[in-house]
Amino acid sequence: VTFSYTIDATVHTITRVRIAIMGKKTIRDLGEFGAIDRIKKLLPTADNVVEGIGDDCAVVRVGAQLLLLSCDASIEGVHFDQAYMPPKEIGWKAATAALSDIAAMGGTAKFALVTLAAPSTTEETLIEALFQGIAEAATACGAVVVGGDMTSNPSGIILDISVIGEPTKDGRYLTRSGAQPGDLLAVTGHPGESAAGLHAFQRNNEAPALQAAHCIPTARIAEGQYFASHTDVHAMLDSSDGLLQDAAHIAKASDLGLNIDSAKLPISSTLQEYARAQDVTPESYALNGGEDYELIIALAPQDAEKRIAEFNKTFDIRLNIVGTFTDAHTKVLVDGAPTKTQGYQHFQTPD
Amino acid sequence: VTFSYTIDATVHTITRVRIAIMGKKTIRDLGEFGAIDRIKKLLPTADNVVEGIGDDCAVVRVGAQLLLLSCDASIEGVHFDQAYMPPKEIGWKAATAALSDIAAMGGTAKFALVTLAAPSTTEETLIEALFQGIAEAATACGAVVVGGDMTSNPSGIILDISVIGEPTKDGRYLTRSGAQPGDLLAVTGHPGESAAGLHAFQRNNEAPALQAAHCIPTARIAEGQYFASHTDVHAMLDSSDGLLQDAAHIAKASDLGLNIDSAKLPISSTLQEYARAQDVTPESYALNGGEDYELIIALAPQDAEKRIAEFNKTFDIRLNIVGTFTDAHTKVLVDGAPTKTQGYQHFQTPD
Repeated sequence: VTFSYTIDATVHTITRVRIAIMGKKTIRDLGEFGAIDRIKKLLPTADNVVEGIGDDCAVVRVGAQLLLLSCDASIEGVHFDQAYMPPKEIGWKAATAALSDIAAMGGTAKFALVTLAAPSTTEETLIEALFQGIAEAATACGAVVVGGDMTSNPSGIILDISVIGEPTKDGRYLTRSGAQPGDLLAVTGHPGESAAGLHAFQRNNEAPALQAAHCIPTARIAEGQYFASHTDVHAMLDSSDGLLQDAAHIAKASDLGLNIDSAKLPISSTLQEYARAQDVTPESYALNGGEDYELIIALAPQDAEKRIAEFNKTFDIRLNIVGTFTDAHTKVLVDGAPTKTQGYQHFQTPD
Repeated sequence: VTFSYTIDATVHTITRVRIAIMGKKTIRDLGEFGAIDRIKKLLPTADNVVEGIGDDCAVVRVGAQLLLLSCDASIEGVHFDQAYMPPKEIGWKAATAALSDIAAMGGTAKFALVTLAAPSTTEETLIEALFQGIAEAATACGAVVVGGDMTSNPSGIILDISVIGEPTKDGRYLTRSGAQPGDLLAVTGHPGESAAGLHAFQRNNEAPALQAAHCIPTARIAEGQYFASHTDVHAMLDSSDGLLQDAAHIAKASDLGLNIDSAKLPISSTLQEYARAQDVTPESYALNGGEDYELIIALAPQDAEKRIAEFNKTFDIRLNIVGTFTDAHTKVLVDGAPTKTQGYQHFQTPD
């Protein structure tokens, strides 16, 4: 039995290698976003799909009810490493990443489904800790875990979390498109801290605040709802792939250009000190570091100061202006100079 | 960097081995269903959760709307092997497995989210074929793919598909509980064919009909809705883990016993011939083989013949009585003799 398998597998491998030599495109060539674009073209849609593939959540209609739907996978060795992340934090972060997609539309999180794949040698206590982290993150966002799937997976732990939410009462939600020329680019919190925290783990540096930013981020549900309920906020997403790349997503979806003023990046003294000690500019962390799950918005310039003052009075975190959307199509600038987005994109780094 | 990782990973491994020696429980000890029971106790619930963890779908309320939610993962090397399954069929079957959970409650399938994890060397055409299979299975069930997540995974292809549905118009849906003593156990189609098809692939036997049953099963959406709309059907699930084990789930959830009459198992001539050639009883395939995605119901004995005649006139597949639910608690019998359920359970076979 095993032998006939092996032959088949080898033939298959040889075929794959031959195809690669002949120049067949892989998803590494396409990149995560290129692959999503291709698949989007392939899939049928329907009248009850209000927003399909391409935003943080899908928006769909069931009866009279609008729903927000999203899912997010966390894979051992790709998204996290048990060497530095305890299971409860792995669960918390996996759930937060999914719940942040609801925040990024300004919605209310309601339910979560959890798929867990793990080696059969995984200890029961580890599984329980994963689910404790998931449950705490869900509870913090007002959501409840209602089901899922459990399966064996010899190569490591995988969590895939689906979230179901709804828009706030007036039915308003925010997408990536809708930014206007002249809108201000604003971001909550301190982007870049999560990436610096990961760097600290990888180099065995001590940086507890940054490491906590990496392991136990917060989904900005209440802040997202605040933005969705104010019509001077025109577009929104969460900073999962890095401020520069994510802000560029808004610009692209809104058919605009963008200029980021690096002097305005909200860099904490902690990040400043850490970056200096590592001989890196803190701005590179703030622009390119992913997994902060802060909110990035396009804000009408009129009365922007008033909006920011009100936000800062209402919430524990700060909202800061870091750039401007321009009508110069497709160009993303930092301090007026062209730049290449360097945030995270799956498939474009070696496995 | 790599070196410090390696040290951490080694320490971690040593710790895990030590814990195993000291007798810490793993999920292999608990089994899939034991692990789910443990997690269920750990998780909070909420008023808007009508049916939580433990059935084919969760049933939740958003506003006035009832929703059915479920997810199902398919992992290369665990659930499928590219050596014998082309990517389009992998996609079809992964989506069908998830959609079958909606069928098992008697619901209408509406939307699907697809998480795809794959090595970055995966060809674009393979990804497209996976999604073509997913889209065709969704379309066949009246559902539409509205979003998902794509991520790299060096160890192989993983599909995790979440489905969102709703009960049929009168709001009725069927769960695993609700069977009454004296109810008849009935099943659609030909359980056991999928397992025989897998066996044929593994032995390099030719058995195209059985192999097709394994690779391109059908989610019985219309049949499930029919059962949910008739009050003489008391309980339902789909045969994903094997008729015997799945029927025992109904018995357990309904606090009943069960006797299966093996002479009544609907064994096709194809399965009969294949099993005979392999020197196996066809009944063992029909009782223990999983992944058929047929529907298993508890049917009131009054007018059962009329119900079956109507079903068989309405649908292309046959409904057959194969046993009786009894009030003898917890005992699952085949031909009156105690038996051990032998269907598939994750974590209880070596990885």
